[in-house]
Amino acid sequence: MIVKEIVETIVNSCRVPPLDRTCDLLIAGDWQCEVTGIVTTFMATVDVIRKTVEKGANLIITHEPTYFTGWDKTDWLRDDPVYLEKVNLIQNHRINIWRFHDHMHLTEPDLVYEGLVRELGWQIYRDPREKHCFTIPKTPVGELADFLKAKLQVSISRIVGAMDGNVERIGILVGGGSLGLGREEMPMELMHRANLDALVCGEILEWTLPAYVRDAYQLGMNKSLIILGHNRTEEIGMKYLVDWLKERFPAIPIEFVEAGDPFVYR
Amino acid sequence: MIVKEIVETIVNSCRVPPLDRTCDLLIAGDWQCEVTGIVTTFMATVDVIRKTVEKGANLIITHEPTYFTGWDKTDWLRDDPVYLEKVNLIQNHRINIWRFHDHMHLTEPDLVYEGLVRELGWQIYRDPREKHCFTIPKTPVGELADFLKAKLQVSISRIVGAMDGNVERIGILVGGGSLGLGREEMPMELMHRANLDALVCGEILEWTLPAYVRDAYQLGMNKSLIILGHNRTEEIGMKYLVDWLKERFPAIPIEFVEAGDPFVYR
Repeated sequence: MIVKEIVETIVNSCRVPPLDRTCDLLIAGDWQCEVTGIVTTFMATVDVIRKTVEKGANLIITHEPTYFTGWDKTDWLRDDPVYLEKVNLIQNHRINIWRFHDHMHLTEPDLVYEGLVRELGWQIYRDPREKHCFTIPKTPVGELADFLKAKLQVSISRIVGAMDGNVERIGILVGGGSLGLGREEMPMELMHRANLDALVCGEILEWTLPAYVRDAYQLGMNKSLIILGHNRTEEIGMKYLVDWLKERFPAIPIEFVEAGDPFVYR
Repeated sequence: MIVKEIVETIVNSCRVPPLDRTCDLLIAGDWQCEVTGIVTTFMATVDVIRKTVEKGANLIITHEPTYFTGWDKTDWLRDDPVYLEKVNLIQNHRINIWRFHDHMHLTEPDLVYEGLVRELGWQIYRDPREKHCFTIPKTPVGELADFLKAKLQVSISRIVGAMDGNVERIGILVGGGSLGLGREEMPMELMHRANLDALVCGEILEWTLPAYVRDAYQLGMNKSLIILGHNRTEEIGMKYLVDWLKERFPAIPIEFVEAGDPFVYR
């Protein structure tokens, strides 16, 4: 199968109405290239590309950008040595990179959240009325953070608010979703509307959600925030995507390659 | 002096051309209120407001929002218990809150960076051609991170890239500046243009700068990122602001109250 057939099959499987604008583009390579193997990953970093080459695969399905900004634009990078060496690596090994972001999130149910919820074993706790919300058995915040850290291999989590509180109403906003998807107030509205004790987050900015939760805590409310980061909350979805792809492309070798948390904590 | 006189004196001292749109607004209180004392802070959290009351002061000069979004809008908060209780606290104690953000950054030199550079003792290392860049004696990245952590009382820093490298060309982008001020590519362009070995950051989003620096490192380049967070890189500027204010208002009690890093690391 060629790249084009694989991408078309994936997009059709998502049953998403055609998007006016999407970042799900062929970032590198050739639509006509015969695919020898597929690698799924959170981000097509230099190391992920090298591992793809080692495996003899030539199509990387990445959730996040390859070229360091949301739209993978490259005009500003023309003279940048990081970009030029990365392109060189990609071209030398004839690697194809397709981004699978918008369609993955717009699939019903969202394929990124599906992977995460399976990993946590939280299917049974789903709130039937409120997306991405769960009612779990009462748990101290620290214990919940430790559970999430172990499941998602997080080395350091950041917590805001009531460390001593017990929580049962939990929301999860993965990746950049915790920034509010264009509306800074969205995650705070969710916490209020869904009566959440704790919100588990990907990315955050200090002047929004953490400020709200800290004030709530200082006012004596049982609210907390457990921040795990973008990679740690979404990469698991790319791991589970392998099964979903294997159902559709049984003849093609498909593997997950971890990009990993970008941070060393010191 | 009343709030209005104090704010007008501050704004005039900044020598910034009139701004079409600014977040430097009276967030709470009354322009005509007689000021009993000023508190400077990174953020007027509930605890900062309580400490202001204890000190007998009634004007808080805050760098960041009071109501959890960039523009301090409150229409979405009308039924929110965190907002309602915070407003209650502010009104019961007749606290005035004025935001000093845009004018602080637009003053020449930027008053937030000035406080930070003084605290680090890096005045002697300034790059005369490139704003916010420094040439320091060659230092291992880990040692530089430890120096910054000690100076700015950071409990955990996040580092990307070459941990083993020596660095001498350093850039600093405080607060939200490391997000690029509306252009995601800005900090990366700065790293390339100013030939920086390391960039010291406030806020970050994983798909931009950390992705770039990780790729650079994986390609063998001596590039690293030291992430200290928004509060930790900017609050020091609010501490130094006390001296600047005392020159202008010698008769009014003025104190710094720390909002502090919002995170517990676990």
